[in-house]
Amino acid sequence: MAIWSNKFHEEMSQDAYNFNQSIQVDYRLLDADLRGSKAHAAMLGKQGILPLEETDRLVNELEQMRQDYANGSLQIDFTSEDVHSFIEAELTERLGTIGKKVHTGRSRNDQVATAMRIYVLDELTDFINQTKTAIQAIISKAEAHLDTIMPGYTHLQRAQPITYAHYLMAYAQMYVRDLGRFEDLYDRVAADMPLGAGALATSSYPIDPFYTTSQLDGFTAPFVNSIDAVSNNDYAIEFLSALSIMSMHMSRYAEETIMWSSQEFRFIRLTDAFSTGSSIMPQKKNADIHELMRGKTGRVYGDLMAVLTIMKGIPLAYDKDMQEIKEQLFDGIDHVKAMLSLLPGMLEATIVDADRMYAACGSGFLNATDCADYLTNKGMAFRDAYKISGNLVAYCTEKDQALEDLTLEEYQGFSDLFEADIYEAIDLKNCVYRRNVAGGPAPEAVQAAIERVRTNIA
Amino acid sequence: MAIWSNKFHEEMSQDAYNFNQSIQVDYRLLDADLRGSKAHAAMLGKQGILPLEETDRLVNELEQMRQDYANGSLQIDFTSEDVHSFIEAELTERLGTIGKKVHTGRSRNDQVATAMRIYVLDELTDFINQTKTAIQAIISKAEAHLDTIMPGYTHLQRAQPITYAHYLMAYAQMYVRDLGRFEDLYDRVAADMPLGAGALATSSYPIDPFYTTSQLDGFTAPFVNSIDAVSNNDYAIEFLSALSIMSMHMSRYAEETIMWSSQEFRFIRLTDAFSTGSSIMPQKKNADIHELMRGKTGRVYGDLMAVLTIMKGIPLAYDKDMQEIKEQLFDGIDHVKAMLSLLPGMLEATIVDADRMYAACGSGFLNATDCADYLTNKGMAFRDAYKISGNLVAYCTEKDQALEDLTLEEYQGFSDLFEADIYEAIDLKNCVYRRNVAGGPAPEAVQAAIERVRTNIA
Amino acid sequence: MAIWSNKFHEEMSQDAYNFNQSIQVDYRLLDADLRGSKAHAAMLGKQGILPLEETDRLVNELEQMRQDYANGSLQIDFTSEDVHSFIEAELTERLGTIGKKVHTGRSRNDQVATAMRIYVLDELTDFINQTKTAIQAIISKAEAHLDTIMPGYTHLQRAQPITYAHYLMAYAQMYVRDLGRFEDLYDRVAADMPLGAGALATSSYPIDPFYTTSQLDGFTAPFVNSIDAVSNNDYAIEFLSALSIMSMHMSRYAEETIMWSSQEFRFIRLTDAFSTGSSIMPQKKNADIHELMRGKTGRVYGDLMAVLTIMKGIPLAYDKDMQEIKEQLFDGIDHVKAMLSLLPGMLEATIVDADRMYAACGSGFLNATDCADYLTNKGMAFRDAYKISGNLVAYCTEKDQALEDLTLEEYQGFSDLFEADIYEAIDLKNCVYRRNVAGGPAPEAVQAAIERVRTNIA
Amino acid sequence: MAIWSNKFHEEMSQDAYNFNQSIQVDYRLLDADLRGSKAHAAMLGKQGILPLEETDRLVNELEQMRQDYANGSLQIDFTSEDVHSFIEAELTERLGTIGKKVHTGRSRNDQVATAMRIYVLDELTDFINQTKTAIQAIISKAEAHLDTIMPGYTHLQRAQPITYAHYLMAYAQMYVRDLGRFEDLYDRVAADMPLGAGALATSSYPIDPFYTTSQLDGFTAPFVNSIDAVSNNDYAIEFLSALSIMSMHMSRYAEETIMWSSQEFRFIRLTDAFSTGSSIMPQKKNADIHELMRGKTGRVYGDLMAVLTIMKGIPLAYDKDMQEIKEQLFDGIDHVKAMLSLLPGMLEATIVDADRMYAACGSGFLNATDCADYLTNKGMAFRDAYKISGNLVAYCTEKDQALEDLTLEEYQGFSDLFEADIYEAIDLKNCVYRRNVAGGPAPEAVQAAIERVRTNIA
Repeated sequence: MAIWSNKFHEEMSQDAYNFNQSIQVDYRLLDADLRGSKAHAAMLGKQGILPLEETDRLVNELEQMRQDYANGSLQIDFTSEDVHSFIEAELTERLGTIGKKVHTGRSRNDQVATAMRIYVLDELTDFINQTKTAIQAIISKAEAHLDTIMPGYTHLQRAQPITYAHYLMAYAQMYVRDLGRFEDLYDRVAADMPLGAGALATSSYPIDPFYTTSQLDGFTAPFVNSIDAVSNNDYAIEFLSALSIMSMHMSRYAEETIMWSSQEFRFIRLTDAFSTGSSIMPQKKNADIHELMRGKTGRVYGDLMAVLTIMKGIPLAYDKDMQEIKEQLFDGIDHVKAMLSLLPGMLEATIVDADRMYAACGSGFLNATDCADYLTNKGMAFRDAYKISGNLVAYCTEKDQALEDLTLEEYQGFSDLFEADIYEAIDLKNCVYRRNVAGGPAPEAVQAAIERVRTNIA
Repeated sequence: MAIWSNKFHEEMSQDAYNFNQSIQVDYRLLDADLRGSKAHAAMLGKQGILPLEETDRLVNELEQMRQDYANGSLQIDFTSEDVHSFIEAELTERLGTIGKKVHTGRSRNDQVATAMRIYVLDELTDFINQTKTAIQAIISKAEAHLDTIMPGYTHLQRAQPITYAHYLMAYAQMYVRDLGRFEDLYDRVAADMPLGAGALATSSYPIDPFYTTSQLDGFTAPFVNSIDAVSNNDYAIEFLSALSIMSMHMSRYAEETIMWSSQEFRFIRLTDAFSTGSSIMPQKKNADIHELMRGKTGRVYGDLMAVLTIMKGIPLAYDKDMQEIKEQLFDGIDHVKAMLSLLPGMLEATIVDADRMYAACGSGFLNATDCADYLTNKGMAFRDAYKISGNLVAYCTEKDQALEDLTLEEYQGFSDLFEADIYEAIDLKNCVYRRNVAGGPAPEAVQAAIERVRTNIA
Repeated sequence: MAIWSNKFHEEMSQDAYNFNQSIQVDYRLLDADLRGSKAHAAMLGKQGILPLEETDRLVNELEQMRQDYANGSLQIDFTSEDVHSFIEAELTERLGTIGKKVHTGRSRNDQVATAMRIYVLDELTDFINQTKTAIQAIISKAEAHLDTIMPGYTHLQRAQPITYAHYLMAYAQMYVRDLGRFEDLYDRVAADMPLGAGALATSSYPIDPFYTTSQLDGFTAPFVNSIDAVSNNDYAIEFLSALSIMSMHMSRYAEETIMWSSQEFRFIRLTDAFSTGSSIMPQKKNADIHELMRGKTGRVYGDLMAVLTIMKGIPLAYDKDMQEIKEQLFDGIDHVKAMLSLLPGMLEATIVDADRMYAACGSGFLNATDCADYLTNKGMAFRDAYKISGNLVAYCTEKDQALEDLTLEEYQGFSDLFEADIYEAIDLKNCVYRRNVAGGPAPEAVQAAIERVRTNIA
Repeated sequence: MAIWSNKFHEEMSQDAYNFNQSIQVDYRLLDADLRGSKAHAAMLGKQGILPLEETDRLVNELEQMRQDYANGSLQIDFTSEDVHSFIEAELTERLGTIGKKVHTGRSRNDQVATAMRIYVLDELTDFINQTKTAIQAIISKAEAHLDTIMPGYTHLQRAQPITYAHYLMAYAQMYVRDLGRFEDLYDRVAADMPLGAGALATSSYPIDPFYTTSQLDGFTAPFVNSIDAVSNNDYAIEFLSALSIMSMHMSRYAEETIMWSSQEFRFIRLTDAFSTGSSIMPQKKNADIHELMRGKTGRVYGDLMAVLTIMKGIPLAYDKDMQEIKEQLFDGIDHVKAMLSLLPGMLEATIVDADRMYAACGSGFLNATDCADYLTNKGMAFRDAYKISGNLVAYCTEKDQALEDLTLEEYQGFSDLFEADIYEAIDLKNCVYRRNVAGGPAPEAVQAAIERVRTNIA
């Protein structure tokens, strides 16, 4: 059955064959393999390795198979060893002896490596586009909340007032970096087209990997070293690393959504479109989708760790261990893509309670830093101003008051630098609007940041 | 559709529903859930929470569903949210209102937790049995090779002569430890039956978790704390950790098989039942199955890392993140079980070249330690004897000879403690047979070790 | 310099020597190595391999070195290759030629393996004791809060009322399982004393590993297979796995403490003993210690992953890769031990706001399940009761009321099964006290659980 | 003591303080922090936030401290909480009240973030340079072995003949990709200078992050979002991911060196400069350094996994968990840098046995693919040629002969397409030289690849 069966090799045990079979996983490479095979056949013709009339028939039939698969008239035979064997068998069924010639001057090693890179470039293109879509959704929501003042947190303690728009744009910034990583990886993969590397040592035929490259959309250059070309799985690790970072970003957002929609925070509310109920507690509205997103982060990390472990310490060139990499990469891609595609809907399902957010700024002394800055502006060294401001907070805590509630006399009991303008200095809204620094939370600054991000994703 | 739908809760978005749906993963818990539900229904009757005639009908119908599923007459509806919703719907279809009563006094949280523990006890039983089978296969092979002398390696350099039986029994020892870990985990899971914990706070009904426990084979005690019962996933981590260690053991064996069947070693040969060919190199016989086994180790590590990450820092009690754990655990179980079941066949497909193994002991000075020990026996301090033996090796290397080839005069030029019995001392076979220490490589010692292992797996 | 230098071997490059040197890491094995060496020397004497007068001197001097190190009069020479070379050199300095004889019948491989197991048994004993101390601290706190009613959460949404004692005891239960894992590992390590395994093939001397075992506290049996004995690092993985699980438990507790001490929850307050301030925000009190504890979980996972990766696919017997395992294991041990020792202090520094906890139960419909159960008790099927209770919640939400606030007429508008006793059924305190099931939140049940735990740690 | 101590905050417990203290880890940021502080002070002056005469004194003294530390006259006080507190205390000691002013308009959060980025850019520069050095060492060795023919392997089975130069250049290619990842990360970090982000919300002073950026070598733009700036640790993950991939490359090289220097392969020999001996086996020369390199790969993976776990699911902005990231990143940097710096020495210490490599090509039918290609060139379909070539291999195996040994008659018994030129077609040297495809093993092709690589690292 196996493509490599010959007199030299008897049958495998059924258990071993089943363990070895990979078509359940690699069937999704069908279109990518057909595209790679087309490019290879075209090169064989152009180089005169096969007659042009034969390579024309190969190219046409491979294209036909793509269309047949797309429209459902070509069914994969899942008893095949892998999708590549299936394609060769189907091609031979269709074209007879000519079909058997497509494998001239290549090996399964470079064939599979090429199908994987084509697939990866497709997926990277998807991720680049979907990431931009997610960023745009964030920007839209942010623009509706430039003035929505809320507490900013460090250590989950109220720290300083910010705006909800500024908060959201922090995530936009993370996704911009994710985008950069996808783009960098795209360029690295595109510059290393592996077809022609053969099993590990290219071919005895006068093949032309540069021409093959020219026949494959997206690629910019062929492999520099044939051994490396068939043993390189860096791209899978780099992709899973980028996906791990992206899912980590999502896990942080999910965590905050879960907390903020708790009874205690109630900064936001999820519509029923993105919440679930309980089997026994009729009152429950759970952020299951966000929790799943947070949990799936672990899954993606696991995929990354799997591939790193697989590649550790295995000799050049190809080893079968690498077969396991495909499923890990596909798993990471599928799940992060699903998460990414949910982001716009999640934002839409998030109803902001701006009043409650603003009210939350009223306790917790979020303006204590501004109080210290006030003194520094009057000439006091920051460390000293910091201490006085801290003493004021202690005083207010004792009296269960806010800084806004103290009289000027009380202030002046702590330092005679205090004057009537202290109240303006510590006004919450002023605290936000004053931070009109590039990258800061003031509405104008956030609007400028939005423009910087828009440029990045244009 | 969802079991929790009520007036308080509108429809989820389709995307969110799909993301949330888990029946593709948890369908395999069907039988375990039915067993748990039976025990629960029996307890409800015994406690008088439901009338006995109703709980009898529930128990009988749940058992009927088990049989229907086993014989294929019950088909799972894969549009359900999860297998537990499917079961409740099917039961209600079959029994009407009585079916709706099975959920009295429990929650989906403790229901799912129980199904998982039942499933895990089943799987642990399988692993315990299959591990014993693998150890027995190793023992059989070892007993056929008690006298097969081969080089023992450290740092992949020939070190001292051992026997192939002794080598094989090192792996038996690893699997004995794996067995111990499975058994310890079994006891830990069995002592913590979670049914009755409810959503997190047990139930307002007078349920009796001790009685429920008595109705479930294998379990020895119910939960001590209901919050812990529904948020505990330690067992999944501990199971995946044990599977990771077991797969690591297999990866080492796979590595050696791959190396030993190379042209350079040729200590063993794999029959065609466990080797594959190449798509372009007609002469190749590759240890693909062993390479896959080595590679799958990474996958199991990834599953472990995923679950650890998922559980990190999530609050009590149940969070939906935990849903993701199931698939990771199932993945680890499936793949390690497949690997474990291949071990006996792999051993059978391994043809040992005893002559080549013995010949390999002839170079590399594997008896240099015995030469040093000879001098120590004559009263020299070990460190000094070590130096003289090293000098002899340097001398032989220069002359391209083995220690056996030197004349007594040459020996005596290095130390006058050398006498004619040095040749017996450094005879390779003697080197092995002399190491008749408990746990050592001499055939008699290995036979004794085999008996110790047999006791362990009886 | 190196213990293995001889004519056959010239000097290493300085860079390679530095890279290879391990005394900065393994110096902490000094006492363990001395104990192992003492047992070995005693065995050499008992077996007549060395004269008793020599082994007596060795045993005494090794014990003297232990005391000298303990009281500071023996200083480690950190230019040595490793601590084992240092010990042999120091012993030879003290005893002359006799010192050189301690290495008779053993190798560095089994020597190091033994020192590590001794060290691990010591550490496991520490962990077992400290875990019990932590559990006792939890019990003490729990006993002071048997009646402190608070919301129980699932999905971070208020679910049902529980007590703070019940919450705390969930963690006690986790640590009880951690304890079990430490104890199981202790037994596994104790039954596999590796001294006598030599480099990989025991020794040509008539050594007696059973006698050596008898000389080492805690151990119960010697190795069964010498190759396995020097290549087995399962115990490091199993230890790090148990530590990972324990740190995961702590990360969940840390997460909750951080959340519960936020302005929004304010269920608890940390005293200044366990909180930190900000460099610019004078008002901040941050749960830095808890955050670090949550973060260090990642570190322990990393240690585990490192060791798993190191062991993947390396051939038997000893390979130098394993040297790296020590530092990972030490790191995990040090950090989890530090975390564990902080737990009692953390509990003490946690000031509970019982009023606020109770008040929080007043909103969020925590008694909606009890309302459904009420109807079920009156004969309605649970699924139908669930729907009605959900409709009531929707009705209350619209009117911004709690279930307690509705009139009986309003109730009866939803079902005529409602009677005046509904108010008692949904009383919050009753909701807790009614759940007096084994393992449940009612004070009496928690007290019983405490006794079950006390038995476990006695 | 702590920089944040004030009346509002009492003393921490000593245990908590010790757990929290980080100067043992972050002391290495001293110079980076001084540079960041200088830039900040300069900006404060330029913006008129502090008087120029004060900022001049700050800038000068901070520079002085850099020099004092470099020449050893400034000693770090390791009882400080962290290096940043130490610097502020030292500066205040030196300048009095002016020293206290350096913290105006910044927070410890952005201060530390900046020091880390400066440090990372320094390290990336080092890695970029050292990677180029390693590639150059590989090129030098490769150029000396353009004609050294050896077996190429797939699945560790001899596959086709290649050259040692071609093999080496596969690793050059991997390091070229590593280089690309370092460079991409450099650009990403440089474009996101965090100073001015404050605690999370910039500052109420009119600071100018663009000016600060201009004062810091290497940076190209300031942060776009202040919340992101202080909570972003993507760079640590991306760096550790790149280091993990690089160490994985090294682990593969180490694996091959270990195998190739075994008695069975003996393709290479390590000089004593890079091998070690055994404590009891005088004849051993172990590739300890290579084994450590292979093992340390696990350590770097562990560092990566730790940071990913730490960042999972923690809320914005800064949380103390992130403190743990530093040590993981430093650990990865230190160990991979040590490995990288050893590479040139390792290559030098590797003595190639070209005769043995060539001889190894004589068995294993490495020319069987060329035999099939020969038939394909004569017009046969590849799959059919493949089968005939396989039959020839089976025939030779039976007769214990090589393909070169068969008579033309024997060949023609398998296919009448065989003619006298078959012997030239399967000549081993011809098999290599014929593969003169771009990226192939022929000496000319490798020389061209070397030039492509030289361009990459110019």
